Amino acid sequence: MATATEADAMRRALALAARGLGSTSPNPVVGCVLLDARGRAVGEGWHQRAGGPHAEVSALCSAAEAGHDVRGGTAVVTLEPCNHTGRTGPCAQALIAAGVGRVVYAVADPTPAATGGAATLAAAGIDTEGGLLADEATAGNIAWLTSVLSGRPYVLWKYAATLDGRSAAADGSSRWITSAESRADVHRLRAEADAVIVGAGTLRADDPHLAARGWEDVSQPLRVVVDTHATVRPGARVLDDAAPTLIAVGEDADTTHLPGVDIVRLPHEGTGLAVDALLAELHRRGVRSVLLEGGPALAGAFVAAGAVDRVVGYLAPALLGAGPAALGDAGIATVTAALRLGITDVTRLGPDLRITAAPTAHAPEES
Amino acid sequence: MATATEADAMRRALALAARGLGSTSPNPVVGCVLLDARGRAVGEGWHQRAGGPHAEVSALCSAAEAGHDVRGGTAVVTLEPCNHTGRTGPCAQALIAAGVGRVVYAVADPTPAATGGAATLAAAGIDTEGGLLADEATAGNIAWLTSVLSGRPYVLWKYAATLDGRSAAADGSSRWITSAESRADVHRLRAEADAVIVGAGTLRADDPHLAARGWEDVSQPLRVVVDTHATVRPGARVLDDAAPTLIAVGEDADTTHLPGVDIVRLPHEGTGLAVDALLAELHRRGVRSVLLEGGPALAGAFVAAGAVDRVVGYLAPALLGAGPAALGDAGIATVTAALRLGITDVTRLGPDLRITAAPTAHAPEES
Ligand SMILES: NC(=O)c1ccc[n+]([C@@H]2O[C@H](COP(=O)([O-])OP(=O)(O)OC[C@H]3O[C@@H](n4cnc5c(N)ncnc54)[C@H](OP(=O)(O)O)[C@@H]3O)[C@@H](O)[C@H]2O)c1
Ligand SMILES: NC(=O)c1ccc[n+]([C@@H]2O[C@H](COP(=O)([O-])OP(=O)(O)OC[C@H]3O[C@@H](n4cnc5c(N)ncnc54)[C@H](OP(=O)(O)O)[C@@H]3O)[C@@H](O)[C@H]2O)c1
Repeated sequence: MATATEADAMRRALALAARGLGSTSPNPVVGCVLLDARGRAVGEGWHQRAGGPHAEVSALCSAAEAGHDVRGGTAVVTLEPCNHTGRTGPCAQALIAAGVGRVVYAVADPTPAATGGAATLAAAGIDTEGGLLADEATAGNIAWLTSVLSGRPYVLWKYAATLDGRSAAADGSSRWITSAESRADVHRLRAEADAVIVGAGTLRADDPHLAARGWEDVSQPLRVVVDTHATVRPGARVLDDAAPTLIAVGEDADTTHLPGVDIVRLPHEGTGLAVDALLAELHRRGVRSVLLEGGPALAGAFVAAGAVDRVVGYLAPALLGAGPAALGDAGIATVTAALRLGITDVTRLGPDLRITAAPTAHAPEES
Repeated sequence: MATATEADAMRRALALAARGLGSTSPNPVVGCVLLDARGRAVGEGWHQRAGGPHAEVSALCSAAEAGHDVRGGTAVVTLEPCNHTGRTGPCAQALIAAGVGRVVYAVADPTPAATGGAATLAAAGIDTEGGLLADEATAGNIAWLTSVLSGRPYVLWKYAATLDGRSAAADGSSRWITSAESRADVHRLRAEADAVIVGAGTLRADDPHLAARGWEDVSQPLRVVVDTHATVRPGARVLDDAAPTLIAVGEDADTTHLPGVDIVRLPHEGTGLAVDALLAELHRRGVRSVLLEGGPALAGAFVAAGAVDRVVGYLAPALLGAGPAALGDAGIATVTAALRLGITDVTRLGPDLRITAAPTAHAPEES
């Protein structure tokens, strides 16, 4: 059984881990707190970016720098310490070498190459325990864990709409349906994502910038435009150097007007590009979490492809009665075929409501 | 200053008052608790229906029947005791005759004929104080207070939709978008309203019944169908005897197939009947609160007429991507003309979210 001190340390480790959101892919976010033999927190660290030190090593360094002795102490880690030598050494070995007497972690590492860290620790005589605050740790690493299991990036679809579900007015105007608080929150989502995706319709209508602004130490997402016919013009805001950009086009698109632009060619599917192929390409590039910003047509294609893992809706308390809907055709014709979700969070953001929901396996209610 | 005992009594009086919702119009809902000279609650009552005893008289009777003496005691009332002799005697006189030493009420009565009760009590030497829990009491009587000030019934528009704002799927199916809990809650709204309104489109699509079911001692609303060309057929469920029904038709409609049906002829406006004329007619009939159940076209006309005082949206966590929107054309073409609301309540109902909002006077945020 983990102690209350260890649970506190795990909460701290989870908060540290979250700082890495958006910059560690293809790695998970991980946080670590070291307790000395007397149970005092003497070191902490988190995984900041792929290629950088793992959380455990970072925590060991911080303890060493401060002159603290961790021998006989406890390492509290949000993810099972890794067992393989990747770009950095295996964390299990580092913990054994440091002489800790106990390791407490939250969730097991499902990656074939990394798994086995707990067994290695135990074999070295270290008291090893998993499962402490596992739900919180799973939620904190949901994008990475989902992508490991599904083999494609985790997709969060964000939309903004009025209470009656309009994402713009009849004349196309949408500035500003939602509040400044909601818009700031979207920038947080961008910073936490590895990539931000929009369709060519949004590109042509809004000339969006898609970079994350207004948050400190922001890690910029890869900006992705799904643009079958390469209609993006040089000078589009999305092509500036605030963040990297990828333009996904059809196999036959003419891209001669886009020298120096990172372009990927994808197969057609239906009226646009194949969503699965797009996600596979992004996964190949190390993208583990995607913020799908729309618009309605592309979001419909993602829903149709079963490629939405979470929905975040910013609902403004306003009525329009006309204008485009937040979600376009997803191939759903009747109520029993609706994509059913479960609401996981409801938060007020200024005047608005942010609703977070995720697809459920539950059958629609019959009555 | 009111005492803590009086505040407790007022909370009880407010709960009693709410029992009258849906059956007291054209009168307000009122609750009353009587404290004896030692501060013990010795009688209580509420206004149950127009023509029945007022709350104060009902409370005095309950105290008398139980053999309690209220002389020198305190009457705690949610609304200023009335001063006029309507269908029952003036409450101010009844309280004076009973010998109470103090009267505490929540909100003043704005009706010209009834106002002045507090002054009458004070002139009789009774210690009189208003304003205790005034906000709660105003909210509890919002329909009646609003209708007194506006001269038309208070209108609550209810809709049910998916997270993406669809009130039905592409094939028209809508059973069941929302949960059993949400549907039960709608029956409560019906029971609390004096009248329930639907448009002819909903009549033709759904053959709705519109009576309130599933709640004890339910007071049935007047069922109103806005049916320009009198398309309702004898045998329609809305014409059964579960509750009274009124069919609003155009001035020139042929209603010979509807003998015995209560019909009102209204002027045309735009593509349908004039919303203002409908509400004036309902007000004339004593209706003070209306539950507008839709559909989208009629709701759009009410929004366009500025005749929506509150919105209750039942949002099901589901996505459809196609199908009719919850709100139809309301004459709003651009975002700055949106009807801006303030959210007053968010409640989970089973899997669904119930959002309550009311129009604000605030200008839309600029940024
Ligand atoms: N309120 C919000 O949350 C929000 C968010 C974003 C956008 N919007 C609004 O949405 C509007 C644009 O909507 P939209 O639906 O036209 O644009 P969209 O979804 O951004 O883009 C749709 C376009 O993307 C391309 N595309 C490529 N592959 C696709 C696929 N598999 N499925 C669907 N589309 C694919 C197609 O254009 P090509 O054939 O040219 O490739 C298609 O017309 C704008 O007014 C914008 O302001 C609102
Ligand atoms: N999800 C929900 O909360 C909800 C609630 C109710 C209904 N619905 C759905 O809504 C659909 C029906 O929608 P709808 O928009 O066609 O029906 P509606 O709003 O119920 O009725 C519209 C009809 O009412 C008549 N009308 C009379 N005066 C009007 C005026 N001033 N403004 C607008 N209409 C006036 C018109 O028909 P005439 O010219 O024949 O008089 C008009 O076509 C049904 O499928 C129903 O299931 C959903």
